Amino acid sequence: MSLNLTPLGDRVVIKPAEEEEKTAGGIYLPETASKDKPFKGEVMAVGRGKLNDKGERQPLEVKVGDKVIYSKYAGTEIKVNEQKLLIVREEDILAIH
Amino acid sequence: MSLNLTPLGDRVVIKPAEEEEKTAGGIYLPETASKDKPFKGEVMAVGRGKLNDKGERQPLEVKVGDKVIYSKYAGTEIKVNEQKLLIVREEDILAIH
Amino acid sequence: MSLNLTPLGDRVVIKPAEEEEKTAGGIYLPETASKDKPFKGEVMAVGRGKLNDKGERQPLEVKVGDKVIYSKYAGTEIKVNEQKLLIVREEDILAIH
Amino acid sequence: MSLNLTPLGDRVVIKPAEEEEKTAGGIYLPETASKDKPFKGEVMAVGRGKLNDKGERQPLEVKVGDKVIYSKYAGTEIKVNEQKLLIVREEDILAIH
Amino acid sequence: MSLNLTPLGDRVVIKPAEEEEKTAGGIYLPETASKDKPFKGEVMAVGRGKLNDKGERQPLEVKVGDKVIYSKYAGTEIKVNEQKLLIVREEDILAIH
Amino acid sequence: MSLNLTPLGDRVVIKPAEEEEKTAGGIYLPETASKDKPFKGEVMAVGRGKLNDKGERQPLEVKVGDKVIYSKYAGTEIKVNEQKLLIVREEDILAIH
Amino acid sequence: MSLNLTPLGDRVVIKPAEEEEKTAGGIYLPETASKDKPFKGEVMAVGRGKLNDKGERQPLEVKVGDKVIYSKYAGTEIKVNEQKLLIVREEDILAIH
Repeated sequence: MSLNLTPLGDRVVIKPAEEEEKTAGGIYLPETASKDKPFKGEVMAVGRGKLNDKGERQPLEVKVGDKVIYSKYAGTEIKVNEQKLLIVREEDILAIH
Repeated sequence: MSLNLTPLGDRVVIKPAEEEEKTAGGIYLPETASKDKPFKGEVMAVGRGKLNDKGERQPLEVKVGDKVIYSKYAGTEIKVNEQKLLIVREEDILAIH
Repeated sequence: MSLNLTPLGDRVVIKPAEEEEKTAGGIYLPETASKDKPFKGEVMAVGRGKLNDKGERQPLEVKVGDKVIYSKYAGTEIKVNEQKLLIVREEDILAIH
Repeated sequence: MSLNLTPLGDRVVIKPAEEEEKTAGGIYLPETASKDKPFKGEVMAVGRGKLNDKGERQPLEVKVGDKVIYSKYAGTEIKVNEQKLLIVREEDILAIH
Repeated sequence: MSLNLTPLGDRVVIKPAEEEEKTAGGIYLPETASKDKPFKGEVMAVGRGKLNDKGERQPLEVKVGDKVIYSKYAGTEIKVNEQKLLIVREEDILAIH
Repeated sequence: MSLNLTPLGDRVVIKPAEEEEKTAGGIYLPETASKDKPFKGEVMAVGRGKLNDKGERQPLEVKVGDKVIYSKYAGTEIKVNEQKLLIVREEDILAIH
Repeated sequence: MSLNLTPLGDRVVIKPAEEEEKTAGGIYLPETASKDKPFKGEVMAVGRGKLNDKGERQPLEVKVGDKVIYSKYAGTEIKVNEQKLLIVREEDILAIH
């Protein structure tokens, strides 16, 4: 899937994992009521990073294709070609798996 | 449309998308009750950027003509020549599409 | 009108627009109940700017005579020679028109 | 009046204006219930300024003798030789007139 | 146990101590109702650290294999191969023992 | 009185003024219900100052023996050899008199 | 007592003073209901300090063996070999005596 969407700053576009991927790699994310409940997904696009005090962009740690565990608490849902996607800040990504 | 309006700092003037553009490019923004609900629009004018600690303006990532997805939560509505426009901070722009 | 008033730091003295100027330049500011409701006015005096970390004053973007759109939410009203004026921070000025 | 009182950091000692000075210079400060209500006064003493990141004192913009408009919201009242004075931060001074 | 999980930034993956380890090394963590109640565990993976203002990663103090005392207040629970793990920020680790 | 007590960082040890000193130097501190009510006292010991970003201690403005006006709102009371003392941050000292 | 416990960052391990030490050195800490109530103790271990913006550890002011006055408000209690200890940030230590 080619994605025509460039997130700004330290934002990342994530495709949430399908049901069958939810235990892939032996990783299981418990159901909780917490607003910080973690989810699995794949990075579809990354921003150029935030500007530091020297006026340079700070490149992100994640790259397109990374499988990640993220919190969607502060994310924004959109739909591109019927696919649900999420725009989050890299801050909301906990780990790469 | 020539726009006689220069936003200050990291502010951006956005023209909200018309009804018929709302699914352009296959991008669809779900209706939600969230205060961070995303919208589509076009960048009409950009500020010179915020000053960094060295006294330099940090240029914005977006430019005039960019089609963007933004949150209007903290924006200010104005009308120029009967056209509704919105002044937001670049921070409130999620992505370019 | 000569104004004997020097705002400190990043503050700006603004003369609110008269009724008849409120649609000048084709710009119309909708009536809202929002505390961030925008207003039109003219810059009468500007401060020398805030000090940055190097001990230098960061000059303001606006200058005397600029027609501006501002939010008066955090401003302070005073009267000079029967003219109502407002002291705001440059942060509260959205755009020059 | 010689004042034996040295404010610390970015603090300033102000002598509030007498009744008869309250419209001096054509400047009138409306009565409001706002906690940020402005007042007129004269600068009696200034601090050496805050330290910046380089360990240097950032000198104040106001100097002894300046007539100022200030907000006393966060100020501290003291009495020196029966004269009411106010210790405020320079931040609380809006303008010199 | 080889762990296929890379935490981002200053995050750390911790394996909580088993019951029998809870008094190992003579260290005992009292039961309290406090949300900051401390726990024992072992570091399984560490992030590359946060970026500083110069664009460099600030390496973590803890390393894989360290036995630590941590607060799980702000942590996120996941399960990898039936093993409960916790993703916390290094900030939430109090000490190495 | 020799004081065997070294405050840390930007903290200062103050001996509150006795009743008879409360109008010394013509300075009178009005009784108020404000939590920021000012008090008079003498500096008994000073810390080495806070570290700045360059790893240097920022020396305090006050020195041992200074007569000061301070707010005890955030201070901590202790007793040394039956003498009530107060440990405050230099930030809570308004002026030297 | 040798302590096998290394606090992280700017944290410090403190052994609270015994009853008989509570007036040692003529220092008496009044009983109050305040959450910032001060306590006496001895420093058992210190962290390597926080990283500054240049990536250097900022060494602590206190060292092992120092007798200190501290606030335990934000501290964490643990027990090592039946001895109650407290892990606090150096920020919570008011003075060395």
